[in-house]
Order: sequence, then C-alpha cells, then structure tokens
Amino acid sequence: MGTFKELILRIAEDKKTRLVLALDVSVSLDRTNRDKWNRLKQDLLSRALKILEATSDFLVAVKVNRHLVLPLGLYDLLPILIDEAKEDGLLLIMDAKLNDIGYSNWWIAHHYFNAGFDAIIANPFVGWKGGLDVVFEEAKKRKKGVLLLCYMSHPGAREGYGQYVIIDKNDQRVTRQYIIFAKRALEWSADGVIVGATAPEIISEVKSIVSNECLIFSPGIGAQGGDPRTALGAGADFLIVGRRIYMAQDPRKEAKRLYMEIAALC
Amino acid sequence: MGTFKELILRIAEDKKTRLVLALDVSVSLDRTNRDKWNRLKQDLLSRALKILEATSDFLVAVKVNRHLVLPLGLYDLLPILIDEAKEDGLLLIMDAKLNDIGYSNWWIAHHYFNAGFDAIIANPFVGWKGGLDVVFEEAKKRKKGVLLLCYMSHPGAREGYGQYVIIDKNDQRVTRQYIIFAKRALEWSADGVIVGATAPEIISEVKSIVSNECLIFSPGIGAQGGDPRTALGAGADFLIVGRRIYMAQDPRKEAKRLYMEIAALC
Repeated sequence: MGTFKELILRIAEDKKTRLVLALDVSVSLDRTNRDKWNRLKQDLLSRALKILEATSDFLVAVKVNRHLVLPLGLYDLLPILIDEAKEDGLLLIMDAKLNDIGYSNWWIAHHYFNAGFDAIIANPFVGWKGGLDVVFEEAKKRKKGVLLLCYMSHPGAREGYGQYVIIDKNDQRVTRQYIIFAKRALEWSADGVIVGATAPEIISEVKSIVSNECLIFSPGIGAQGGDPRTALGAGADFLIVGRRIYMAQDPRKEAKRLYMEIAALC
Repeated sequence: MGTFKELILRIAEDKKTRLVLALDVSVSLDRTNRDKWNRLKQDLLSRALKILEATSDFLVAVKVNRHLVLPLGLYDLLPILIDEAKEDGLLLIMDAKLNDIGYSNWWIAHHYFNAGFDAIIANPFVGWKGGLDVVFEEAKKRKKGVLLLCYMSHPGAREGYGQYVIIDKNDQRVTRQYIIFAKRALEWSADGVIVGATAPEIISEVKSIVSNECLIFSPGIGAQGGDPRTALGAGADFLIVGRRIYMAQDPRKEAKRLYMEIAALC
C-alpha cells in the first residue's frame, strides 16, 4: 500500500479519470421533528448511495463534508457509504478544513481516519507547532493523506488567501498568502493542495511552486463558475465537482460528460 | 429572548460566573471494533454527562467540539447531552471553527443551530462574501451567536494570527492579522471573539478595539499554560477551560476552585 498521493495517481491512471465527487447532499433535521429523524436519515443515505453508485465509474475519489457527516453520523450511517465507496475502489477524502489547536486537530483527524477516510483537508493558516504538526505525524504513521487549503473558490477568499503578507519584518518582503501556503505544503510534505478553479491564474502560480511534489485539487467547477478546461490547463491535477453532478437531473450522465471532457483535455 | 450576548451576560450575572467548560472528552472507535461501538458511545455519553452535572453550577456555558460530536453523533446521542445542558440553564457553544465556502458554512451552522446550539465559532480568515456572510445572516435570523477566532492559544498561532499583513497595497500600511480580525468582528457584529489566554498582551490589544461591543472568550487556561488572573486582568470576559476540569480527579472541585478564583478577580 502506497501513500495517498501514489494511490490516487494509480487509480487515476487505471480509470483514466481526474474527477472527485463532492457528495454534499444533506437534509434538515431539528429538535421539533425528532420522530422523523430515522426516516430522514435513511432517505438521505439512500440518496447519497444512489448518486455514488451512479457516478463511481467516472470517479477517482469522493470528498465528504459536514453536510453528510452531521446528519448521517460518522459511526452511525456514514460507515455504510464509506464501505460502498471502498467497494467501488474509490478513495475517501474528508473535507474537515482542520484549523484547530493540535490536541483537537489530532482527535478530529483520528476519528476520520479511524472511520476509513484516506485523506483529510486542513487549513495551513493554523500553523505548524501545536497546530498541524500532530496531524501530519498521525497521517504519516497511518499512510493517510493531508491536503492543504491554498486558495478557496469563493469571492471572500481574496480577504484571507489573497491578502498581502510580510514574511520577514526586517526586510519587509511582501508576498501573497497563498504563496506562503503553497510553500508550506512543500515544506510539510503535504500530498496535495486545494486551489479554487475560479482562480486559474493562482493555480498556475501555485503549480510553479509545488511542481509535481503536491497534487493540485480544484473545487468550484459548475455552480461556482469554474471551468474544467481552464483549471486543468492552468495545472490542476484533479477537479472536485459537487452540485453540478449531484443536483443534475441525471448524475451519471453529468459525471460521464465531465469525465469525457476531462479525458479529452488530459 | 435576547441575543446570545445578552443571554450569556445575564446568566453570568445571575450565577456570578465567567466560566465556560470545554467538554472535549472523546473515545477511539474504529472499523475493527464495530461490535463495541454502542457500548463505547454510551460510556462516553455517561462520562460527559457526569462531568456536566458535576460542574454545571459553576458554568455559564458549555463548549462542544468535534471530540464529542463525531463519536456521539449530532442527531444520535449528543441530543441527550444538549438537553441536559439546557435543563441546567447553560448555553451551548459549538466550536466548529467554520472556515468553508458559504454554501457549506450555511449547512454546518444550520445543523448545529437545529440541534440546539446557541452560538457557533467561525474563522474570519475565510472572509465575508460567499464565506461567513450567510452564517451571520442565519444566526441573526435565529437569534443565535457567532464568535470569531481572533488569536488562538497554541504556539503556531504566531504563523497565521500573528503575521504582519498589508491592509492597503497602495499605502503599504502594515498591521497584525489579529487586529484585522478584531476589526472584522466589530464590523460584522459578532457576539464575541476568541483570544488565547496564553497571549494576554493580545487580549489587551483586542479589548482596546472591541471594547464592550464583542465579548472576549479566552481558552488555553491550565493544560496550555494560560492563567485566569492574567487573562481576566487583560480584558477577557469569559474563560474557556477544558482539560484542567475534565481531566481532574474531581471535576466539581476543580470547577469550583476556578469559579472562586474568577469570583475573587471580577
């Protein structure tokens, strides 16, 4: 068994795909309808499984976020979905966007790895010492992957990921926040970085830093306005697509269409 | 029913306490011991309830993190703990450290608010537009609170929260990241900010910006080295204490000791 980076590249090669599904379906439960929770959870699970089964031929991995973890429960119904993804030969990425103190990050990562996730997404803003150090340590020990946020896909990303930072107070050298994060990804030996498909020029800049050492994952295709051709052209290795697939009339058809589009470009 | 800020101040006044318990107990579950999951979850719930019952007299609120949400399940066993905290007259703060795109932040906040949490912690680094805008909107609509991370309690906080940022590229004005966050908290009408008790000089600086508009919550007392006297002296309104209480031989005694210490200082 290789590292997460090796594994995902092998599956991508075997299946000739670069597509990661963001399976962000969810359902509203609340304190007033407790008697309906079981049925609502089961319905959500069925819906998620149906989308997964319909699209898995075209996927290299599935990315899960709190949309699904919170209603299904990490140790309740989610394991059924995790088992299904594994049976389909897919890798599982947990989009936890870790940004806590080390003690908490460790527990969160530990839970997701225990539940079967192959990689976890973390925010390098939280820093190394007493922040992400223990996550990388735990991941390395268990041959799990860590992907670092580098530049996100929403407009507000400019306010943080895009800001200008002074690296060294003495010589006043100015750099962009995402450049610092890309360099951290290399330094910390992350398996990959996340750069929004909505910022292709930043994908290119990040690619020039991480080269082939870190894989570039690009979310924001479709609903958020990103385009597969531009993102891949700029240097993205994998495209993360959510709403465009799972909200489609026919998710299989949409996943296949994207798969074909990517195949023609790679 | 008032805002979260009004509610927590009223309870603090009534009970003469400024103590928030970080109930970060957890348990390891994994794919190899599925048959034991139910028992392990029940044991964890009992342990958490016992600590809560023993300490609630001295608390204004309880802060829950993923340590507890992931093994217990937000819509599985955690509701029992949430009900208990509410019966004890405590407010519930979800330490989600939100830092996702708006669509995901909305779903996460929606789930936690639905489950009964009164406030949620978010990371202002993610920015406003398509980031936290929808969280503040949802919170305001439901009279829930939003607390923003301003400076965290671990050493690596320096790398992000402590960095020097150029606010305006044209006039090259330099400021610290946490100053930007404190100003964002005011501008966005957050109920409170989080500043680690391990950085009392930063608590003072932040206090001079947010005044009494935003409450200051300080974690990092005890296990991480922060001290109640220094943190309160610097301007913290509430102290968040976890391991020092729940890992104590006698959590009630330890909570009471802290309560007395705080009462003598306020």
